[in-house]
Amino acid sequence: MEQVPLLSDALPLVASDPRWLAVALADLDAVHADHLHCERKAAQSALSLIRSYPERADLVREMARLAHDETRHVVQVAQLMSRRGQTASYDHGDAYAAALRGHIRGREPERLLDRLLVFALIEGRSAERLGLLAGALDEPKARALYASLAEAEVRHRDIFLSLARDAAPATWRARATELAGVEAEVLADHPIAARIH
Amino acid sequence: MEQVPLLSDALPLVASDPRWLAVALADLDAVHADHLHCERKAAQSALSLIRSYPERADLVREMARLAHDETRHVVQVAQLMSRRGQTASYDHGDAYAAALRGHIRGREPERLLDRLLVFALIEGRSAERLGLLAGALDEPKARALYASLAEAEVRHRDIFLSLARDAAPATWRARATELAGVEAEVLADHPIAARIH
Repeated sequence: MEQVPLLSDALPLVASDPRWLAVALADLDAVHADHLHCERKAAQSALSLIRSYPERADLVREMARLAHDETRHVVQVAQLMSRRGQTASYDHGDAYAAALRGHIRGREPERLLDRLLVFALIEGRSAERLGLLAGALDEPKARALYASLAEAEVRHRDIFLSLARDAAPATWRARATELAGVEAEVLADHPIAARIH
Repeated sequence: MEQVPLLSDALPLVASDPRWLAVALADLDAVHADHLHCERKAAQSALSLIRSYPERADLVREMARLAHDETRHVVQVAQLMSRRGQTASYDHGDAYAAALRGHIRGREPERLLDRLLVFALIEGRSAERLGLLAGALDEPKARALYASLAEAEVRHRDIFLSLARDAAPATWRARATELAGVEAEVLADHPIAARIH
């Protein structure tokens, strides 16, 4: 029986360094504080694509829905932090995401393809790490939340991949695999820290 | 019986020029195209407040919920446009909102108060105009959508006012009334157009 290739086959992510989970579990407050901003920025990124490409009805619909999901995640992470008696803190930036964005080409139509693929990579990496956290957390509510968030980020990765495929049917797969290689290098270049990425 | 003053009593908005509704109804495509971006920018503004004031747990929770509402509105307006066979277009900017933002003072704590009040004004004006549209549209689905959006913007206005009251209990009311006067002038200075504001 022939296997239909999955969208995500085009985006082979390396596994996180095994030390990351221990570093994250040792300072969950820092992870949550970073995570709140990750969800906020994911919503903002989706809205920024609507601003840039309003004439693409599929993209507008999918990004509006995705931003709707991500804003619910912001509410959920804020609630988790509140249950832990933790106040959010300022966003200290994300050198990992900035390094990936540095690989987005400046001219269209390459720019759209690269933006979609970089967001797919960030969602994919987030999904992996939220899943690792879900498997390791003791508190049942936090565990369930992280499991559901990991599932959501997998869906989001595939939404970005499907928009990338529609935007550049002939080239998206090769570029996705190329950028997945870039992501592995970027990840290796950045310190292991108590944050999502 | 004594009447408790409403939050919105502090924000006495003038009525829109009676000609606005006819101008808007004459080019509903332009109104919807503008409206999609208004909802997107409302979500982005709420998220930007989370970025600026993460240490305020009430603000983070309320703004995350508000952004979640506004992203649903983006989905709904996109669906309405799709039913009408209309493609979204580029955001041509909003001189009205830019003029209001010009009155936000630069230093804290005044800056937070003014940002909250300017967003309250924009929500209040949007609520008025979406309500006018709801009352005038023939198509039942569009009518119901605009009525529900008008209700939502009233709630959002009051969320901003309640955060403004909490941020500056002694001064918020006088500043709100002052900025409502500014809004009336800004509105009078801008041409009547087929857009939300």
